[in-house]
Amino acid sequence: MSGSASLAQPQDFTVDAFHRGDFHLVQPRKGHRAGMDAMMLAAAVPSLFAGRIADLGAGAGAAGLAVISRCTSAKAVLVEREPEMADYARKSLALEQNARIARRAEVLEADVTLGGKARAAAGLADDSFDFAIMNPPFNERADRASPDEMRRAAHVMEDHLFDRWLKTASAIVRPRGGLALIARPQSLLAILAALEGRFGDAQIVPIHPRPDEPAIRIVLRAVQGSRAALSLMPALFVHDVDGRAFGAHADAISNGRATLFND
Amino acid sequence: MSGSASLAQPQDFTVDAFHRGDFHLVQPRKGHRAGMDAMMLAAAVPSLFAGRIADLGAGAGAAGLAVISRCTSAKAVLVEREPEMADYARKSLALEQNARIARRAEVLEADVTLGGKARAAAGLADDSFDFAIMNPPFNERADRASPDEMRRAAHVMEDHLFDRWLKTASAIVRPRGGLALIARPQSLLAILAALEGRFGDAQIVPIHPRPDEPAIRIVLRAVQGSRAALSLMPALFVHDVDGRAFGAHADAISNGRATLFND
Repeated sequence: MSGSASLAQPQDFTVDAFHRGDFHLVQPRKGHRAGMDAMMLAAAVPSLFAGRIADLGAGAGAAGLAVISRCTSAKAVLVEREPEMADYARKSLALEQNARIARRAEVLEADVTLGGKARAAAGLADDSFDFAIMNPPFNERADRASPDEMRRAAHVMEDHLFDRWLKTASAIVRPRGGLALIARPQSLLAILAALEGRFGDAQIVPIHPRPDEPAIRIVLRAVQGSRAALSLMPALFVHDVDGRAFGAHADAISNGRATLFND
Repeated sequence: MSGSASLAQPQDFTVDAFHRGDFHLVQPRKGHRAGMDAMMLAAAVPSLFAGRIADLGAGAGAAGLAVISRCTSAKAVLVEREPEMADYARKSLALEQNARIARRAEVLEADVTLGGKARAAAGLADDSFDFAIMNPPFNERADRASPDEMRRAAHVMEDHLFDRWLKTASAIVRPRGGLALIARPQSLLAILAALEGRFGDAQIVPIHPRPDEPAIRIVLRAVQGSRAALSLMPALFVHDVDGRAFGAHADAISNGRATLFND
């Protein structure tokens, strides 16, 4: 780990095993840490996928690395705007434990919301990917803000965010290429509106903590340029009723042993 | 059945028992016949509901009558544009078997898409209902039409339909009153867009034929004037895996013995 000198203290980061040790991730001890969301997102990519995939807003790279760990002919570009997080992604690729996958990944420091020539100049050329995955950031604090005005502002910001991110995804993914995203159910309208005219044949898998509780996430997969109608797929339950441990299917999915769309 | 003279032949209609005989419905033998959709829609209304409910596009009145059959203090207005269908609804109310509920129902021949003064003049005054339910018509043939141009036109028409129907629902339902609708999953964007600024706190129950198949319907419930975020609720499975008969829960719901939101 030659780059570790740029970190203030060794204990500022952790090295975590994912997919039962198939790959590892260097990530900050504090702040956003990769977990189930990234693994569920990665599990939306078919196991036979063999092309070039963009992990948009990759953070330390958990989702993108999970895809290429399972899809052994796929190549990932981990697109991250924050230099510190991009640095963690580079450190992940430098780990000895990731030698099997590191040659099929690269880190691109770029802003997903760039458009036009600036986007291409940043390394995100039109039609240059076969698939894009994204776990767009959301602001939980804004949801809890009680004044209507603030909530409305957060709402507008989120609409804008999905529109920009999906505009970029639609531009860089080739026709009939794939998209997968993970988000909160309350973002459905913003997401479906932003997909219009860009991606179709959307398939949504709701993710519920338990079979009798509302969904906490949706994973959506869609096809660039398709006009086919949306489908609402069977849900995934993270835990069985009353269970604390992951259910068997959720465990297999989060460990790269099964996929969300059974392909 | 004093009104039966207006029907060409006695055999043109049927009298069908619903909710295990709790109420009956006179409906045409051919064309759209009420069934599971109407019962699932009715099951979205809480059992303690005691106000005035509008069944928009009521047809022969199946959903509205199912609500007042279970909610014994509720009153229903069956709103139907087609004179022939409104006539079937009136015949249903005239049935001896419906004496228990008929006093709490009336038929209003009016077009749900009316706006402004014409809507009020037709009998749909602002803030005059506590709840509205709807099963808006959809054109299956348009979906199968292959030319992109036709599918796009059907899409635009559907957007327009949900916008008009939900505009009327929002106008006639009092603040904090309820809305329930049943529709196809592919209409989600049109529905969520049309709810914006009108109804909030939407709760969606996907309805799957079997646990391993995509949803064929969604039932959505929402609150007039609310700004609360959408929830994706646990799904309902009509049949168990491999089952031909209704599952126990679906059977209870379609017979007025249980509700879709457990209230």
